[in-house]
Amino acid sequence: MSSIGENLRITIFGQSHSPAIGVTIEGLPAGASIDGERLSAFLARRAPGRNEWSTPRKEADEPEFLSGVKDGVVCGGPVTAIIRNTDARSGDYAPYANTPRPGHADYTAFVKYGPARDAAGGGPFSGRLTAPLCLAGGICLQLLEREGIRVRAHIASIADVADGGDILTGAVGEVFPTLDPERGEQMRERIAEARARGDSVGGIVECAVTGVPAGLGGPLFGGMEGRLAAALFGIPAVKGVEFGAGFAAAALRGSENNDPFRLENGRVVTETNNAGGILGGITTGMPILFRVAVKPTPSIALEQRTVDLEKMEETTVAIAGRHDPCIVPRAVPCVEAAAALAVYDAWLGRKKEL
Amino acid sequence: MSSIGENLRITIFGQSHSPAIGVTIEGLPAGASIDGERLSAFLARRAPGRNEWSTPRKEADEPEFLSGVKDGVVCGGPVTAIIRNTDARSGDYAPYANTPRPGHADYTAFVKYGPARDAAGGGPFSGRLTAPLCLAGGICLQLLEREGIRVRAHIASIADVADGGDILTGAVGEVFPTLDPERGEQMRERIAEARARGDSVGGIVECAVTGVPAGLGGPLFGGMEGRLAAALFGIPAVKGVEFGAGFAAAALRGSENNDPFRLENGRVVTETNNAGGILGGITTGMPILFRVAVKPTPSIALEQRTVDLEKMEETTVAIAGRHDPCIVPRAVPCVEAAAALAVYDAWLGRKKEL
Amino acid sequence: MSSIGENLRITIFGQSHSPAIGVTIEGLPAGASIDGERLSAFLARRAPGRNEWSTPRKEADEPEFLSGVKDGVVCGGPVTAIIRNTDARSGDYAPYANTPRPGHADYTAFVKYGPARDAAGGGPFSGRLTAPLCLAGGICLQLLEREGIRVRAHIASIADVADGGDILTGAVGEVFPTLDPERGEQMRERIAEARARGDSVGGIVECAVTGVPAGLGGPLFGGMEGRLAAALFGIPAVKGVEFGAGFAAAALRGSENNDPFRLENGRVVTETNNAGGILGGITTGMPILFRVAVKPTPSIALEQRTVDLEKMEETTVAIAGRHDPCIVPRAVPCVEAAAALAVYDAWLGRKKEL
Amino acid sequence: MSSIGENLRITIFGQSHSPAIGVTIEGLPAGASIDGERLSAFLARRAPGRNEWSTPRKEADEPEFLSGVKDGVVCGGPVTAIIRNTDARSGDYAPYANTPRPGHADYTAFVKYGPARDAAGGGPFSGRLTAPLCLAGGICLQLLEREGIRVRAHIASIADVADGGDILTGAVGEVFPTLDPERGEQMRERIAEARARGDSVGGIVECAVTGVPAGLGGPLFGGMEGRLAAALFGIPAVKGVEFGAGFAAAALRGSENNDPFRLENGRVVTETNNAGGILGGITTGMPILFRVAVKPTPSIALEQRTVDLEKMEETTVAIAGRHDPCIVPRAVPCVEAAAALAVYDAWLGRKKEL
Repeated sequence: MSSIGENLRITIFGQSHSPAIGVTIEGLPAGASIDGERLSAFLARRAPGRNEWSTPRKEADEPEFLSGVKDGVVCGGPVTAIIRNTDARSGDYAPYANTPRPGHADYTAFVKYGPARDAAGGGPFSGRLTAPLCLAGGICLQLLEREGIRVRAHIASIADVADGGDILTGAVGEVFPTLDPERGEQMRERIAEARARGDSVGGIVECAVTGVPAGLGGPLFGGMEGRLAAALFGIPAVKGVEFGAGFAAAALRGSENNDPFRLENGRVVTETNNAGGILGGITTGMPILFRVAVKPTPSIALEQRTVDLEKMEETTVAIAGRHDPCIVPRAVPCVEAAAALAVYDAWLGRKKEL
Repeated sequence: MSSIGENLRITIFGQSHSPAIGVTIEGLPAGASIDGERLSAFLARRAPGRNEWSTPRKEADEPEFLSGVKDGVVCGGPVTAIIRNTDARSGDYAPYANTPRPGHADYTAFVKYGPARDAAGGGPFSGRLTAPLCLAGGICLQLLEREGIRVRAHIASIADVADGGDILTGAVGEVFPTLDPERGEQMRERIAEARARGDSVGGIVECAVTGVPAGLGGPLFGGMEGRLAAALFGIPAVKGVEFGAGFAAAALRGSENNDPFRLENGRVVTETNNAGGILGGITTGMPILFRVAVKPTPSIALEQRTVDLEKMEETTVAIAGRHDPCIVPRAVPCVEAAAALAVYDAWLGRKKEL
Repeated sequence: MSSIGENLRITIFGQSHSPAIGVTIEGLPAGASIDGERLSAFLARRAPGRNEWSTPRKEADEPEFLSGVKDGVVCGGPVTAIIRNTDARSGDYAPYANTPRPGHADYTAFVKYGPARDAAGGGPFSGRLTAPLCLAGGICLQLLEREGIRVRAHIASIADVADGGDILTGAVGEVFPTLDPERGEQMRERIAEARARGDSVGGIVECAVTGVPAGLGGPLFGGMEGRLAAALFGIPAVKGVEFGAGFAAAALRGSENNDPFRLENGRVVTETNNAGGILGGITTGMPILFRVAVKPTPSIALEQRTVDLEKMEETTVAIAGRHDPCIVPRAVPCVEAAAALAVYDAWLGRKKEL
Repeated sequence: MSSIGENLRITIFGQSHSPAIGVTIEGLPAGASIDGERLSAFLARRAPGRNEWSTPRKEADEPEFLSGVKDGVVCGGPVTAIIRNTDARSGDYAPYANTPRPGHADYTAFVKYGPARDAAGGGPFSGRLTAPLCLAGGICLQLLEREGIRVRAHIASIADVADGGDILTGAVGEVFPTLDPERGEQMRERIAEARARGDSVGGIVECAVTGVPAGLGGPLFGGMEGRLAAALFGIPAVKGVEFGAGFAAAALRGSENNDPFRLENGRVVTETNNAGGILGGITTGMPILFRVAVKPTPSIALEQRTVDLEKMEETTVAIAGRHDPCIVPRAVPCVEAAAALAVYDAWLGRKKEL
């Protein structure tokens, strides 16, 4: 299924080169207003073709609301919004129809869907499908903000360059989303180098959700880690998710990893936040903190070994089409969007219990 | 919700000290036989009180099938199996009713459920709930094996000691699940040291699923990474999940991380497996590989700072009850169980498409 | 799936002769108290063996709460309660293993589950599975009542005898649930006649849900009619459901069937209630009214034609086991329970929107 | 939620006067071809403005596939298709914004969605939303037909005129879907009379699904009656659903209502089909038979009493806009579509079990 969410249900549809891509959202509260300008500004952060480190494919990525919204206000019933695909060059992909690109879904799409598959541009596996994800998530970000909940991510690392600063206190760059502009500059150098080599680089995105009340989520499969991870792994290229101290916690002692409780202005807080704001699957009221591993863009110009699926013989492929040498910068708003979906879904769920 | 799965639906119920814990499984194929002895042997790998590195709480952990199974064969309708709680000492937990233990769900349970919560032994947040998880997963492991699919995990690290060997080719220790017995010995030393200090240690579990056909899963929220992660984060103490190269992929170049395709006995395989057997959310036919971060046991004997929720003042707590100084060894079968649930669910889903 | 509900999820498990039957309920609010005596009294209305018009099978039908309830209060996490099967005589059913009883699920169970099926007593298709339905529904009835919502049903007809009175104003008999005791007496005569002939009779149950606020439900597949029907058709033997004027509305003109709006004490009400309290799938605030067709008990002593599935030849069957000559009286609490589940589920859903 | 289906998931979106209405379908098998001409012909049966007994609103109702279909073949990923709203006259509905039309969802929409609601043309409650229902159902009808399963409905009655003939053997009229053309003529007279009076009439639709294999569905909430009813009650104006003998079964004796089994060409069949092809919630292999009560169109020209929701005073309303004096003829393809969705969903589910 291409759907997620228990209380707010999101269904994403479309392929890289289908007439349109879009999303249907069930469960948005009637009466909620959507700030179209802010939504467009959010989508622009993800949109391609805006700068030297992203694919030159140009898409306006302006959402068209087909249903559920009237005069900018949610009016009841499902909200469906679409984005037309305009600058799709299917011809670019013809050479790869039978020679799956390593690291891409070409081969698995062939196995799953057979000859009927829409191979152009990665079909339903394309990173382009994160546009409707950001569309839905961008709406949730606005609704969460009205509840005092903010979601903010930055590039924690690209290749071997780590960002500095603290996401809870620092300012994230508008053009390039790092806390430390100098490190951002170094990351862009790594991207430029990779591009020059016909190669690509990966990175890590870190995200903080602040202002979350304690009590969202639940034990076992209702836990916030699982809900967030299910949304985050929906972003193509994400290969790891960790909360709080995450994998590093594996090397800590309990006395180091446990976050002592204390009082702050009459409110229970924790001294440290190795739990990433989640204990027993439930938010503690501390910021939710997590990190997401983004693999290097699989599309590279370098020659790679592959298989001709028709002739069933080994061959090579070099990818000439347009592509990002690093998708991490554009993954930042995607991570925020996925997080917003999961948190808003849990926030709605909490209303049932109170 | 305490449920998971699309085609095979699992609902886990119970608290640490409730009369019983158990699981309801919907979607098991009628006619499938369950090998009770092997299931018990699998449950024994998770059960407490068997050795020096686990809690001395003794539980037989023998499943009682209430419905859906007749003479050891699935007979149609939901399968419900329970495990009685026998050696529960609720008194042990009385001191912590109002002083939440750091790293535990005590505080979040209080916020979520209020004074009605069942605080004894961690209530529904207890690691004891992994027994029904293993029960359901143990059944799926048997069914998968009949399809040629095997799930095997080992301890990849505890504290600063990493296991050696290759999970795809090595033998996992029966008493202590490492590939390299010597490293296992060192890990046990770390556990013993932590116990002696009244402290605890964490670790990493690595898991491989072999024999998986290509084509399981789907794009976006239907991807195998998200399905597996949703199941794995249902295990208390799991704080990170990564597939294939995972977080390390973030530092690789595309040309390094992409897995070239080649032919092997007329079958498409990949040269490397940085993708962890999943591309575009769909299995490639290569082994599914993933790693899970397990935090150090939050229950430690050392004094920790906390808050008295009734008096709303700061205080300390030292945990005297029975507990594991390291839950990683017992997490190994839990990881196998969670993986088996997710893979078998996807395997059933694939049947609809063919 | 054997589950139902969006916000309150119910999973029923068990077979007529399995060790136990039961239900898991996810989504009950922590802190809600359950009145065990009233619940038992409600279950007793459905229980067999209490009078001359029901099967002599004796079952205590006392629920045992395995999880989620502590000292009679919902404590968080799923609630699982079971009822042990004690007076099961599997031998009674041996003769029908290969000669499906007409009107029963014997043949379809054979097709669906094959030789592994649990044929004894109807297996998972048994009317006995309405005990856990009533268990879950009985809890919801209590919770709804605290919100001022009452669910009450009566026998509208058995065979050719119709009840008199108005369910909104009349008193329902405790021993035999009709509004008019005299008609109830006549119905019991019809039942006695049928029993004497080795035959059975069917009937209609009418139900009213009062005190429902306007605004529950939603358009299309979220409508209250569909939600109620999905729950009601879960009761074995139900073959029709109609709301308000129902099938009779088909013969009315719009001017007759439309319910004019008017004000009553400053509240919008309708003059008539042909809509059965539901417009556009959403409650109007008027009583929800519906009727449920219950087929005559398929188990009859008269000889019936059937097929020997092993020899694949035609034969006959006469059913000697214990059975009700009319299940309509015992269906009354089942209808109330199913309605309570659907209404409470929608009531919880409404909380998300406000 | 506006979604339905377990294995084939349908989400319908749109309002009467939104830019478009549409449907997203998850779970269609890749490689399935869709006959666009037949689909259009099916949609034309439901479309308005084609004859004297339906609203003069003209809509082309031609589906535009946005995703999931390439060259008329399902290519993997969700299928989304929309229908543009072109001939919407929102002005027609301005007078009713605060004076809810009796029998319509105006009042309940106001309660549920508040002032933000889209009142024009009934918003998301409009019968127009059956166009995407027919779009999705029309595709399922084609897929079912390839499996030898046919779904056919006719008008069983309008007002006091009942159709003659047998849906299993008779031919349904193309222009007016009755078995007996003469009865159809009489029904049209009743419609014309109602229109002349400014009134409307209701009716009953009967549907048969033939060629269904035994074994679809399941016990309890997985039963075919509940699945079909949940889909059918999604059609606005449906107020009752009955299977086989339905409400009439309530007056039968078990010996009359039970369908004896016999052999026919080595296949198990039933002599009669009072069960409507469903026993224990599972298909028997006999035709599925059911009847659906459709209330008279609530939109009538006659003056009706209502309430001014702003001034909170009683007033009257007479509906001048375009509307059908009888929606039963157009409900016939809707019933077929809803049935096809439920049956195809169950058919896909059955594949998991075999």
